[in-house]
Amino acid sequence: MDIKKFFEPESIAILGVSKTPEKVGSVIFKNLIDSGFKGKVFAVNPNEDFVLGYKSYPSVKNIKGNIDLAIIAVPSDVVIKTVKECAQKKIKNILMVTAGFGETGNLKLDEELLSILNKNKIKLIGPNVLGLINNYNNVDTLFIPFYRLKRPKKGNISFVTQSGAFGSSVLDLISAEGYGLSKFISYGNCLDIDESDLLDYLNKDKTTEVIVLYIEGVKNGRKFFETLKKIKKPVIVLKGGKFIESKKSTLSHTGSLAGTYETYQGVFHQTCCIPADFIQDVFDFLRLFEKNIEVKGNRIQIITNGGGHGVISADAVIHYGLKLAELSDLSKKIFKKSLPSIATISNPLDLVGDADDLRYKLAIETCLHDKNSDVILLNLLYQTPRLTKNIVDIITSLNNKNLKPIVVVSTGSYLTMELEKALENKGIPCFQFPENAVKSIKAVYDYYQYRK
Amino acid sequence: MDIKKFFEPESIAILGVSKTPEKVGSVIFKNLIDSGFKGKVFAVNPNEDFVLGYKSYPSVKNIKGNIDLAIIAVPSDVVIKTVKECAQKKIKNILMVTAGFGETGNLKLDEELLSILNKNKIKLIGPNVLGLINNYNNVDTLFIPFYRLKRPKKGNISFVTQSGAFGSSVLDLISAEGYGLSKFISYGNCLDIDESDLLDYLNKDKTTEVIVLYIEGVKNGRKFFETLKKIKKPVIVLKGGKFIESKKSTLSHTGSLAGTYETYQGVFHQTCCIPADFIQDVFDFLRLFEKNIEVKGNRIQIITNGGGHGVISADAVIHYGLKLAELSDLSKKIFKKSLPSIATISNPLDLVGDADDLRYKLAIETCLHDKNSDVILLNLLYQTPRLTKNIVDIITSLNNKNLKPIVVVSTGSYLTMELEKALENKGIPCFQFPENAVKSIKAVYDYYQYRK
Repeated sequence: MDIKKFFEPESIAILGVSKTPEKVGSVIFKNLIDSGFKGKVFAVNPNEDFVLGYKSYPSVKNIKGNIDLAIIAVPSDVVIKTVKECAQKKIKNILMVTAGFGETGNLKLDEELLSILNKNKIKLIGPNVLGLINNYNNVDTLFIPFYRLKRPKKGNISFVTQSGAFGSSVLDLISAEGYGLSKFISYGNCLDIDESDLLDYLNKDKTTEVIVLYIEGVKNGRKFFETLKKIKKPVIVLKGGKFIESKKSTLSHTGSLAGTYETYQGVFHQTCCIPADFIQDVFDFLRLFEKNIEVKGNRIQIITNGGGHGVISADAVIHYGLKLAELSDLSKKIFKKSLPSIATISNPLDLVGDADDLRYKLAIETCLHDKNSDVILLNLLYQTPRLTKNIVDIITSLNNKNLKPIVVVSTGSYLTMELEKALENKGIPCFQFPENAVKSIKAVYDYYQYRK
Repeated sequence: MDIKKFFEPESIAILGVSKTPEKVGSVIFKNLIDSGFKGKVFAVNPNEDFVLGYKSYPSVKNIKGNIDLAIIAVPSDVVIKTVKECAQKKIKNILMVTAGFGETGNLKLDEELLSILNKNKIKLIGPNVLGLINNYNNVDTLFIPFYRLKRPKKGNISFVTQSGAFGSSVLDLISAEGYGLSKFISYGNCLDIDESDLLDYLNKDKTTEVIVLYIEGVKNGRKFFETLKKIKKPVIVLKGGKFIESKKSTLSHTGSLAGTYETYQGVFHQTCCIPADFIQDVFDFLRLFEKNIEVKGNRIQIITNGGGHGVISADAVIHYGLKLAELSDLSKKIFKKSLPSIATISNPLDLVGDADDLRYKLAIETCLHDKNSDVILLNLLYQTPRLTKNIVDIITSLNNKNLKPIVVVSTGSYLTMELEKALENKGIPCFQFPENAVKSIKAVYDYYQYRK
């Protein structure tokens, strides 16, 4: 199904813009004007000539010229009348924000709507959606003001979510944490366009490099499976309603019947999706996937300046089913010659608390060339006295050699966060705790292993 | 063993203060001066008359009056000579920062030191320690400057750690996140005073209400077990070196032989300790324990304004072995009368996206009085349009009735973090993600169940 016009419209009409700026239709209209969208935007309101200082049309039919996308935010009792007018105007793409359909038991309204759509070949996202964002042309139809929901910078992550509120809160946090976004879509009840259609679109979308999917249930399992099989990009998926006891809540929420989680796990495994157990996993896994970091083997070499962190990192490596690399004889020889006697030449490689930038440089460089390991897990504890800010440039220049992934773990407050941000800006993934780093490395390793 | 003077000394001598301000002894001396410690502080340096602008003594023996605590930060080759001088001065408490003992294979130095200690009845913390903090009298012997390691505000958490670097990074993060500290001790090689002695002291310490323990291994298992059995406060314990593969790294780190993790788990279970699987757990569990929140039952009622968050919260409740509460008939009757028809009157109780402060007030108040639940897990998504900052006062006043614990989950950026901080300041625990909140509730529930 071609759904390009939803994301790349040249003209948008918002039906249900009110004089009250807080109302859903008004917020959408205002956000589209403020976001810098270059296409045409029209407000529709049958009772007003002007809304929020802009001309308003009594019906879409009164607008001259073509309308690529209609966003409907009218009350549910006038929704059918409104859709009929869109059909008369030959509008082919509708985003339906209005709720009160199947999700509240009103199946009759679903049927009425579907019949008009089919008769007029209209495509629909919704009803009951939060809306969508295309960060590459400033299409922003979310009915949440910017002060409540920060918008992310441009990037390569696209996010498809069945739950609007969940999507908005994650979007807000993604923005604050500095991740970059390509597209965001809350698809709600998916009466017409479903998760599979959206995934198919994102698979072809050039600015999307990693996809995050939140689903509670899918209606067409076969289509979902076939679509996922075709996708050539990493798909991190969080499934809501994993257990019999918690599944009943998904019924009332989005009205979709969910199969057992085991069935979904089977599908994810066969289609090389990356399942997230928890919300935290989504954020953690993205740190590696958004940077296109490829993990080709499971042998992890830990470098640390804090013994305890080294031990906890080693625990995490075993816990998540990866392997502790063994230093090559050559590396051992270099370290025996160059490191102080209290250093531990093993895995973890403990450079001890007085390690300075140069000791780290030697350790990283040697391990990058060591054929016995695939990933360097680099603990940097900035509380120790001799590590300076120059370490950022040292790691960056070593990382740019692209010999193997370097994943940094730094636990601490202000100085730590400042240096973490600097490293992230240079494309080096940073985690606060070793366990999250290792779990993410495992997720990426599995993805590239199964994908082959 | 009476180790009070380590935490409540009236006079401290630092042996090994140098003219160079970056050296360990100098940083300790400077921190003690700057921290506002009210007792006497003396610098010892055999080669200088003045260091860092203060008078310096050639030996502790030259200091007039009693010395409660000696902090030794001299090179390891003069450490025996230095300890002998302390013995001559009749100093009974030594904190040994100097490293290069058993942890590097120098067992002879261990023996020499022990023999002097025994002969002179000197108590020792260390060697190879980061030091200690007593936040209630400004004793701060940590050799890390404040700009690298922020110090926490006064509070009720005490932290005992075998690893100095691990301790310092966690301490730094605890400060930034606003937790309050009573005592901090990095006890290193524990040649004399061990984790059990420290736990015993903290058990009696009036300002300590919750203890965090990081251990890699204990030398005297029986003593450890008997001490833990006597402790009447929650002990959150993180064990490093859980697996055979990762255990060998603890040997080189702190020189202690670690039993199997299963043995430790048995000890923790029998002594009602709260095991943390990951570093993150320590922070999460503290959110509830530092507030003395007691969880008396396992039936969780979820209240949400976002369906997806409700579903994920319900998943977490089942995943961590708690139960989804069932609303009483009375609660259902109240909600049917007062909530809009699109709300879901179940568990999760979904107040839907347009929920305002008053709808939340009604929901929380009703659930607080509902006899079918023990804890309220309150999802607050501030991205939705009608929730205002007044919600903080509403929740606070309901929470002050002490009917059952209210645990808040809020996912988002600036507005979310601002309101989370306000709630935390009022004694209401806040989490970013539902899974962390639920795991913590389970930890507290288990603690109070087993403790009985």
